Amino acid sequence: MTTSGFGNTVANSDISIASPRFLASDNTSGICPEAMHYLLQANEQDDLAYGNDVWTERAASRFRTLFETDCEIFFVFNGTAANSLALASLCQSYHGVICHQLAHIETDECGGPEFFSNGSKLLPVDTPMGKLTPEGIARVVTRRNDIHYPRPRVVSITQATEVGTLYSLDELQAIREVADQHDLKIHMDGARFANACASLNVTPAQMTWKAGVDVLCFSGTKNGLAFGEAIVFFDHELARDFEYRCKQAGQLASKMRFVSAPWLGLLENDTWLVNARHANAMAQRLVEGIHDIEGVNVMFPVQANSVFLEVPITAQQYLRDCGWTFYTFIGEGGVRFVCSWNTSEALIDALVTDLRQALVQRDQQ
Amino acid sequence: MTTSGFGNTVANSDISIASPRFLASDNTSGICPEAMHYLLQANEQDDLAYGNDVWTERAASRFRTLFETDCEIFFVFNGTAANSLALASLCQSYHGVICHQLAHIETDECGGPEFFSNGSKLLPVDTPMGKLTPEGIARVVTRRNDIHYPRPRVVSITQATEVGTLYSLDELQAIREVADQHDLKIHMDGARFANACASLNVTPAQMTWKAGVDVLCFSGTKNGLAFGEAIVFFDHELARDFEYRCKQAGQLASKMRFVSAPWLGLLENDTWLVNARHANAMAQRLVEGIHDIEGVNVMFPVQANSVFLEVPITAQQYLRDCGWTFYTFIGEGGVRFVCSWNTSEALIDALVTDLRQALVQRDQQ
Amino acid sequence: MTTSGFGNTVANSDISIASPRFLASDNTSGICPEAMHYLLQANEQDDLAYGNDVWTERAASRFRTLFETDCEIFFVFNGTAANSLALASLCQSYHGVICHQLAHIETDECGGPEFFSNGSKLLPVDTPMGKLTPEGIARVVTRRNDIHYPRPRVVSITQATEVGTLYSLDELQAIREVADQHDLKIHMDGARFANACASLNVTPAQMTWKAGVDVLCFSGTKNGLAFGEAIVFFDHELARDFEYRCKQAGQLASKMRFVSAPWLGLLENDTWLVNARHANAMAQRLVEGIHDIEGVNVMFPVQANSVFLEVPITAQQYLRDCGWTFYTFIGEGGVRFVCSWNTSEALIDALVTDLRQALVQRDQQ
Amino acid sequence: MTTSGFGNTVANSDISIASPRFLASDNTSGICPEAMHYLLQANEQDDLAYGNDVWTERAASRFRTLFETDCEIFFVFNGTAANSLALASLCQSYHGVICHQLAHIETDECGGPEFFSNGSKLLPVDTPMGKLTPEGIARVVTRRNDIHYPRPRVVSITQATEVGTLYSLDELQAIREVADQHDLKIHMDGARFANACASLNVTPAQMTWKAGVDVLCFSGTKNGLAFGEAIVFFDHELARDFEYRCKQAGQLASKMRFVSAPWLGLLENDTWLVNARHANAMAQRLVEGIHDIEGVNVMFPVQANSVFLEVPITAQQYLRDCGWTFYTFIGEGGVRFVCSWNTSEALIDALVTDLRQALVQRDQQ
Repeated sequence: MTTSGFGNTVANSDISIASPRFLASDNTSGICPEAMHYLLQANEQDDLAYGNDVWTERAASRFRTLFETDCEIFFVFNGTAANSLALASLCQSYHGVICHQLAHIETDECGGPEFFSNGSKLLPVDTPMGKLTPEGIARVVTRRNDIHYPRPRVVSITQATEVGTLYSLDELQAIREVADQHDLKIHMDGARFANACASLNVTPAQMTWKAGVDVLCFSGTKNGLAFGEAIVFFDHELARDFEYRCKQAGQLASKMRFVSAPWLGLLENDTWLVNARHANAMAQRLVEGIHDIEGVNVMFPVQANSVFLEVPITAQQYLRDCGWTFYTFIGEGGVRFVCSWNTSEALIDALVTDLRQALVQRDQQ
Repeated sequence: MTTSGFGNTVANSDISIASPRFLASDNTSGICPEAMHYLLQANEQDDLAYGNDVWTERAASRFRTLFETDCEIFFVFNGTAANSLALASLCQSYHGVICHQLAHIETDECGGPEFFSNGSKLLPVDTPMGKLTPEGIARVVTRRNDIHYPRPRVVSITQATEVGTLYSLDELQAIREVADQHDLKIHMDGARFANACASLNVTPAQMTWKAGVDVLCFSGTKNGLAFGEAIVFFDHELARDFEYRCKQAGQLASKMRFVSAPWLGLLENDTWLVNARHANAMAQRLVEGIHDIEGVNVMFPVQANSVFLEVPITAQQYLRDCGWTFYTFIGEGGVRFVCSWNTSEALIDALVTDLRQALVQRDQQ
Repeated sequence: MTTSGFGNTVANSDISIASPRFLASDNTSGICPEAMHYLLQANEQDDLAYGNDVWTERAASRFRTLFETDCEIFFVFNGTAANSLALASLCQSYHGVICHQLAHIETDECGGPEFFSNGSKLLPVDTPMGKLTPEGIARVVTRRNDIHYPRPRVVSITQATEVGTLYSLDELQAIREVADQHDLKIHMDGARFANACASLNVTPAQMTWKAGVDVLCFSGTKNGLAFGEAIVFFDHELARDFEYRCKQAGQLASKMRFVSAPWLGLLENDTWLVNARHANAMAQRLVEGIHDIEGVNVMFPVQANSVFLEVPITAQQYLRDCGWTFYTFIGEGGVRFVCSWNTSEALIDALVTDLRQALVQRDQQ
Repeated sequence: MTTSGFGNTVANSDISIASPRFLASDNTSGICPEAMHYLLQANEQDDLAYGNDVWTERAASRFRTLFETDCEIFFVFNGTAANSLALASLCQSYHGVICHQLAHIETDECGGPEFFSNGSKLLPVDTPMGKLTPEGIARVVTRRNDIHYPRPRVVSITQATEVGTLYSLDELQAIREVADQHDLKIHMDGARFANACASLNVTPAQMTWKAGVDVLCFSGTKNGLAFGEAIVFFDHELARDFEYRCKQAGQLASKMRFVSAPWLGLLENDTWLVNARHANAMAQRLVEGIHDIEGVNVMFPVQANSVFLEVPITAQQYLRDCGWTFYTFIGEGGVRFVCSWNTSEALIDALVTDLRQALVQRDQQ
């Protein structure tokens, strides 16, 4: 039994029981063909280190085209680093970051944001559907105004959220307004940014700077790369000296081209969007598949590629015995399935079948 | 109007309204005569710097006598530093500190513990009466056991608590047991340690190492000094190189004798205990004085020197107009009064009188 | 034998040999009468905590008058904290601080600046007389311009220097020019700022903002206080949220009035200047007294209150046996004497006598 | 013109002049075939995240076999992180790390070690040939023994050194002895560890734990991977909770198998050694090729894969015009060439030819 990311237990890390079937997270998938194509290309000849290669500039340029603005792009290795470094650039150690109680930065980065910022405090808010609200934000900002408590400085939004829901553009706009009232910057954790754009059918520009986002952490890993998150600053001033910050924090790849070139695979031909749409569609397929299974309930609206289901404990065990990997919410009877760029319809259908059978088994007990 | 410490507003920092009467905190009092005596003594001739003077060793020795054990003593300037440095010596950056949701380290040190430890996360628990319970501690420790969340390493107890209640020796013992089960160290925030010893009538040894406390931050400031908290380690290994930590963190006084000598004034003739008993007695006097005032309710058992009362908003304003300083709990109608070594019976009686009048005024409106 | 501050050994911490006579540092002196007067005054009645008292505003106002400008004043406990916090407010973790190789921040703060700034690197320069030069600064700035090395951000000047020399106003101006060329801020470590002003006969304004200093750490401790350094920002923007930084770092005194009120004693009637002039005069008296002692040489121009002498090892031992305390430069035969506000002519004369005798003793061996 | 890693300038990042020929560093090479084989293999099916996959355990097991001991292995993204995290696990913030003045941790990690450790100070030593000596180490340890300076805690050795020289086993042993005398841990920066083993013809075990090394950072990047350094602890106690440290610091790859599986390619069939031997041989070929070119001098014994040459400035420009990339030592006329696993004999021969021609050109001017 292995423990991992969602603060919970992954079933079936003990893979001897059955051949494992991976729906625990979109980080169990590999590298998509388009990204691999560029990784191999970048390996064909030597090139300069530390991002001075030909690929990195091409990838950065592609990002600027995608976002329809002269933004600044930095590539780092993973999501913890991306979020933590972005927040550290917005905060001093005595500042606070308003985030949802379920935000990854609060629950699953082992104090990364506090470490990189040397002490900035996360100020969690517990509002419905995993989403911050203007009221929730205002409440945190106004409850204290003395120097004995960290001064709120940033609102961190996760889009799509940790529970698979989405902020609408209107909701983002409303958050921008309350942020403006209180002189707050907005950070967007885009671990599943592609899935959000795909689902809402809005452009990256609409989802970010047009909605008032100051800095975005755009995950490539969950979208089909081996590694490599892009930090996108829409305000050049906020990005000042950020390359030094990355270097000092161990996030400047010497062979940078193996991070940046695969991004070209994602960004060309809208592969990032194709991958995200597929993952979202598989999540929908799962929801539709289980809608008539009595005893299985959808916990949150399925708006991106994550599906949270209430599944009886005995049925969960049945699934594990079948080789399914998934995270559980301890003590709540909830399980999470996340679809990815390579999740097949057959896999979803097999899960639905096993879930159906699991409930039957339970009823027969 | 000035904002301050308890995350709330101190009434009457605008002292033009009326001559202020201080019951907002035990840190509005000055230096007690016994401490001043030694401060003046230490000023009579020059002495070596950085604690190599004759006073510091005498004070440390007195502490060892008081605690009936060969403990290690370090003097630092204030409570934020004392708590934060003590926790930093127990934790690595990826560790977690279990504390009550109302603990000063969580609510009123502006991220100090996170700063000094470079990222240790506070893991707050919301249990009744401002006190941690073995169950609450165990719940935090066991809800996660993966590397994506800080590993719990320390339990931080405040004695007396932030709401003026006390842990009994049995309660401390029960916490030690759960701490042992989970390999946790115990830190005691003794901002009002003297008041706790006085109220429970137990010795400092019984309250600390005999009850399983690993390190105590013993406040002198609230007990009658100008500055200067004593960090008392009962485990020599935990204190290893701690003097370097203090120095680096800006907590090594060059003229150390002006911190340590006044402690002699507190420790000789049980002045620390006399001061604490007096403060506690004044708190009791206040509780007794207001027990028959309708509309004023005691919010927590008054076991030390803090008194939390529910007072109608209009009555609060009346008190402010009379010059009383106090903290409020925003949105709860609660006010805090804290008695000190120099709080007079007359002051308490005047407050009772004004409170009674305040409620009458309200009823007449 | 006790080790201490200057990285060297203080003779005669073993005070059994002879009654100690203190010239090791100006931090072995106590509180001057004018400061004590206000300390006692501030103790006469209760007052608000955390600097909301009547004394702190008066002291800050006095500073503004002294510096002839609307500067921002913060009081912290000691010099390590003052320097480290000031530098942390000017730097991000990936920045560098250019300082002299003998600067206190490099040699005697146990990594304090690196700790408070979470990693800013000190970039020491070895130029004559303990003083930075424009050329030395430019050399550090221009030798690297890549992201693999901390970006220089601040020049830190110590005035008077660690070896008792002074920057002239012209020298300060020249440093300001090179700083402007390279977008560097200027921090002044004013551990002996008063001595510098007194010796050069320039005003605090001339020595600081008029000479391009951005932030000054003005030591009260070495000038006659028990504790308490003033951080003076001449650029309001640089001081933004600095009160949070102080609080988080354990440098906000709850009974702040006992730091700020004694400063009134120094600032009224030019006591700070009187104290400094006296200390400087005693240093001159020492230099004059020993000028004809063969075998004793002055190592650096004596421009403030520190005197560095080459003294034969055997003569050093003689002094120790006489009870004199002083720091030595290991392996160099150098000793340091520092005069203070309360150093008496008699003490200086006794040292001269003993030094003369020490050399005679040696010659007779 | 682009600036980069060695604190110097890489010629010909402006690749329009001529087709670039890469000898600036072994990090300009790509992924070796054996590593790529496993990267592709690992991509063939989904697997668990965060190192719970089948590849990571296999790779770790291979390391234990290679080192002939039950060591603990952690994979991180790059060398800055590997060194900084390893040092942070050995140090508290007030500790010091003794290293050579030319060590990468001192000159090219932008304050990374200070950042990760929250302030540990590097204590550089300037001894010949880029190598620490027992005497140099002892000098640093013994020059200070007071709390005003960081306490030395670790000796950091780079093997092979930054200037391409090697510590013999005897030299390592002598360092271990002085480390033992002063209670110091030994960290080995193995950016070119493979080259060192190959050149000295010693086993990894002989080079590390048998020689008293406590923790090794073994670079895969420079040996043929895209990314991924292995941190190898030979003392389990030192590795305690290190996985939390990695996670918090943004160094835990979610798709860990793409770091670990390629290591299998290096470790099987001694590919790591074959790659290193080849690189070393190419360095020798270069040295031999230029031995008779007047005006070109070898600056340091060429014992691994780096070659430092004194080359006249005009000749350097000629090389740049030919498309060669290399680092220069500013102001010293030195240039660095580093050979890699894929450096061809033809490339070396072409460089020799161009160097010869460069000197002729110069003579004709």
